[in-house]
Amino acid sequence: MPIVTVQVTREGTQPGSDKVTAEEKAAIIQGVSEVLRDVLNKPLESTYVIIEEVDLENWGWGGMPTQHYRQLLAQRKSSTI
Amino acid sequence: MPIVTVQVTREGTQPGSDKVTAEEKAAIIQGVSEVLRDVLNKPLESTYVIIEEVDLENWGWGGMPTQHYRQLLAQRKSSTI
Amino acid sequence: MPIVTVQVTREGTQPGSDKVTAEEKAAIIQGVSEVLRDVLNKPLESTYVIIEEVDLENWGWGGMPTQHYRQLLAQRKSSTI
Amino acid sequence: MPIVTVQVTREGTQPGSDKVTAEEKAAIIQGVSEVLRDVLNKPLESTYVIIEEVDLENWGWGGMPTQHYRQLLAQRKSSTI
Amino acid sequence: MPIVTVQVTREGTQPGSDKVTAEEKAAIIQGVSEVLRDVLNKPLESTYVIIEEVDLENWGWGGMPTQHYRQLLAQRKSSTI
Amino acid sequence: MPIVTVQVTREGTQPGSDKVTAEEKAAIIQGVSEVLRDVLNKPLESTYVIIEEVDLENWGWGGMPTQHYRQLLAQRKSSTI
Repeated sequence: MPIVTVQVTREGTQPGSDKVTAEEKAAIIQGVSEVLRDVLNKPLESTYVIIEEVDLENWGWGGMPTQHYRQLLAQRKSSTI
Repeated sequence: MPIVTVQVTREGTQPGSDKVTAEEKAAIIQGVSEVLRDVLNKPLESTYVIIEEVDLENWGWGGMPTQHYRQLLAQRKSSTI
Repeated sequence: MPIVTVQVTREGTQPGSDKVTAEEKAAIIQGVSEVLRDVLNKPLESTYVIIEEVDLENWGWGGMPTQHYRQLLAQRKSSTI
Repeated sequence: MPIVTVQVTREGTQPGSDKVTAEEKAAIIQGVSEVLRDVLNKPLESTYVIIEEVDLENWGWGGMPTQHYRQLLAQRKSSTI
Repeated sequence: MPIVTVQVTREGTQPGSDKVTAEEKAAIIQGVSEVLRDVLNKPLESTYVIIEEVDLENWGWGGMPTQHYRQLLAQRKSSTI
Repeated sequence: MPIVTVQVTREGTQPGSDKVTAEEKAAIIQGVSEVLRDVLNKPLESTYVIIEEVDLENWGWGGMPTQHYRQLLAQRKSSTI
């Protein structure tokens, strides 16, 4: 009877997309439920999966909002070339 | 000083309603706070209750989004009659 | 298919007890599951309840560990009499 | 590699504001990340911070939705003057 | 930068084992991290996985502690044969 | 009335220590409570802080348990010198 909570940033993985699609969510749910079935013998119907989408300004990394830290990382990378 | 987190699907319980109403939320808050008071002697003012409403496509069950699994269960049920 | 998470301090409610008893846990589980059934028509078998016991030194209140803050509140109270 | 989750009510701290601003969120992220760095020597880039804003009607306190309890506290206070 | 929290009951999946083994935990971590990589293109190093083991008496199902409910389900099943 | 949950690995920051000390926990509680007070004007007594210590084998990073990934990172680093 596992509960799996998946927290991801609310953004797209494909150009032109700005959110996780319903198909991607279904694939995440299927994938993690199968992991619990394969590793711990938990039947699929006993697993609940909760996907939480977090706005980028609500997700901090490196002591700042994620977008800022990503820009910083990109700048550092380009400046070392 | 309990903290109670209640995660429910974002949907209605009555025909025509598509979400948990403010009255239902207030009743949940009162009910679970009273449970903590009655069982553990926690005063009502020391309990925080957080209600998290989860979109149906973000809640997985049976290895798939909840709506799909409910449809599957309904089909299985009708096919055994 | 609600999930209810109940976080409480790991301590007893009765003299001589230093933890939440199995009977108290069962009563909490029954109580909150019945609230979800009564308010949102959720069948008991669709609700999962997780009880998390938190050591007192891991629970902060008033900017300090809970025991310290309780002592402070008790001192304030006695000094105003 | 700490994960810090900050749950706050969705409301403003300044007159005319009804939500936590992006500047306030950035300040929270920076502040708590620095606490983990200063106390546990965790590098800023290893800390994730998640801010969850909770609607007032979804946050219970004193056995009722927060707005109601605040009104009650305000009434009690004014009636004791 | 996903965060995946996996809550499971603290019990074994093999005869003679009463807990989730280190190998099973490693397999869960690998499996769910790969799901996030395959579905959302998240690099493995950006995903944190937290496994929370919950004592059976702290996990409620069907309005009662899980062991009791499992016994009830087993009795119902045997009585319908 | 914020709730701050701080998840850290259960390990020491000083040689010879294998866990977060009570003093470090008190400093974390004070620090994050002051951040909420300074940024959002939340009084210290309205903030709850929960510290969750997670065993190293229960915390995954890089698709594997944290100790393994740290060893891998250390090996990569030394091999590039």
